[in-house]
Amino acid sequence: MNVIGVGLGLIGGSMLLGLKKHYPNARFLGIDSKETHVKAAIDLNIISAEAEEEDFKTADLIIVSIPVDKAAGVISDYLNRIGAHTLIIDRGSTKEELCKALENHPKRHQFLAAHPIAGNEFSGPTAAIDHLFDHKTMIICEIEKTDPKLQNLALECFSKMNMKLRFMNPKAHNKHMAYVSHLSHISSFMLGKTVIDKEEDERNIFDLAGSGFESTVRLAKSNPKTWVPIFKQNKTFVIEALSEYISNLEHFKDDLLKDNYDGLDTKITNTNRVKEILEGIHN
Amino acid sequence: MNVIGVGLGLIGGSMLLGLKKHYPNARFLGIDSKETHVKAAIDLNIISAEAEEEDFKTADLIIVSIPVDKAAGVISDYLNRIGAHTLIIDRGSTKEELCKALENHPKRHQFLAAHPIAGNEFSGPTAAIDHLFDHKTMIICEIEKTDPKLQNLALECFSKMNMKLRFMNPKAHNKHMAYVSHLSHISSFMLGKTVIDKEEDERNIFDLAGSGFESTVRLAKSNPKTWVPIFKQNKTFVIEALSEYISNLEHFKDDLLKDNYDGLDTKITNTNRVKEILEGIHN
Repeated sequence: MNVIGVGLGLIGGSMLLGLKKHYPNARFLGIDSKETHVKAAIDLNIISAEAEEEDFKTADLIIVSIPVDKAAGVISDYLNRIGAHTLIIDRGSTKEELCKALENHPKRHQFLAAHPIAGNEFSGPTAAIDHLFDHKTMIICEIEKTDPKLQNLALECFSKMNMKLRFMNPKAHNKHMAYVSHLSHISSFMLGKTVIDKEEDERNIFDLAGSGFESTVRLAKSNPKTWVPIFKQNKTFVIEALSEYISNLEHFKDDLLKDNYDGLDTKITNTNRVKEILEGIHN
Repeated sequence: MNVIGVGLGLIGGSMLLGLKKHYPNARFLGIDSKETHVKAAIDLNIISAEAEEEDFKTADLIIVSIPVDKAAGVISDYLNRIGAHTLIIDRGSTKEELCKALENHPKRHQFLAAHPIAGNEFSGPTAAIDHLFDHKTMIICEIEKTDPKLQNLALECFSKMNMKLRFMNPKAHNKHMAYVSHLSHISSFMLGKTVIDKEEDERNIFDLAGSGFESTVRLAKSNPKTWVPIFKQNKTFVIEALSEYISNLEHFKDDLLKDNYDGLDTKITNTNRVKEILEGIHN
């Protein structure tokens, strides 16, 4: 099997390393907009060499892991250049705009829109690990639009990588992600900003911060080049989720202003259910 | 040395276990409003027996680890009953109201207001661990009001437990905590609520949640009986911090509504500084 990774960062690199474990005889090539990433990916044994123009014609699988604002253009271009048996898989965090953009492409059946629910706040090939996707969920959108033979290839790869599959349409995907992923990032970015802004006048506030603060702002380390395009492409649902979040915070503040401590207790008690939910993530 | 723990939950239990490592010959007794906690603390070797009335007269150290709304009454009562050489240490998460309440107590010099910056979302004696406070910060308020001999006893204990000391007044303590701790909890509680409310109509949203969501809502598992009294006692600073947080979220939403993606990029890039800050926590 010939595999090409387009984008060799945390996600792309981990995807290739995960596949390599289960397809030890496959050939892994790659490209990246950063020359240093290509070099690092070769040094780290993620790929054996940089992919050349003709490699795209003979590839079985092309895995595209680049910022979501670049994906539609890049994938459309590759679809024009690949052979008749090549499958292109996208793994971006938004799906509605991408699926819409590729809807009428004559080679739409050689494309699969997928989104692995895994990642962390680090980036680049050096952050890639071969077990990032083990037992994680892979959301697949519009599988019926992909050629059945190529569907099978993709499902075999995901199954070997021990991933759990969930099928949904691009709109449902984007809505769910606004709540369970994109909102978490905004809440964390703005928590970080609120505390950092305070720190400008008040030195040394940070050695007072404990593990609770650390956990809550972990995502604030995430890369704006990845996240701004996601917020942009998922604008409608992100604004919906963010508005509900702000409204909940306003109600919390109102309760506090009105000394309604029973109200706060009820809110928090109901939210403690998140325990069971988090346990659910691990099952 | 005779030590009594008043409140044998996560913090109280861990405090006693931490001391026990360095004072293996000391005698550890305790009480708790929950009879099951006393039993568990004995079973777990945190204390050897329940403390009786006369034990308070001969104790060297009484460590009070109870919800902040109970602390002033309980500590005032113990101060009336202890011997002349006993030190009472409080380790609650708010300090202004407590220090004010005890300000004119005739035995104020036998009390020390301290706050260890450590903890997690679990509770009860079974959650107690002997290294919870290793290399963590201990904030001490109004040390000058404590008898110098008793100051020395406390500082020796904290130093043996490898804690870093920070001295500040109760008001500064409460303000800093509003930003680096209390706000994190509110942001997490309300993030959990926003997503759970959505789940009521939309089943199965949660197996789509990844480690990012998990990290950001970890604190939403925290106990309302601990946290509502903290928010109440620190109402003014919590409202100030929460208002700034809401305002930052509103600005984020505005940028998104106005397609000001450069503005979002700048906000996030500046907030990425949180990386260095988090590294600071570990040094």
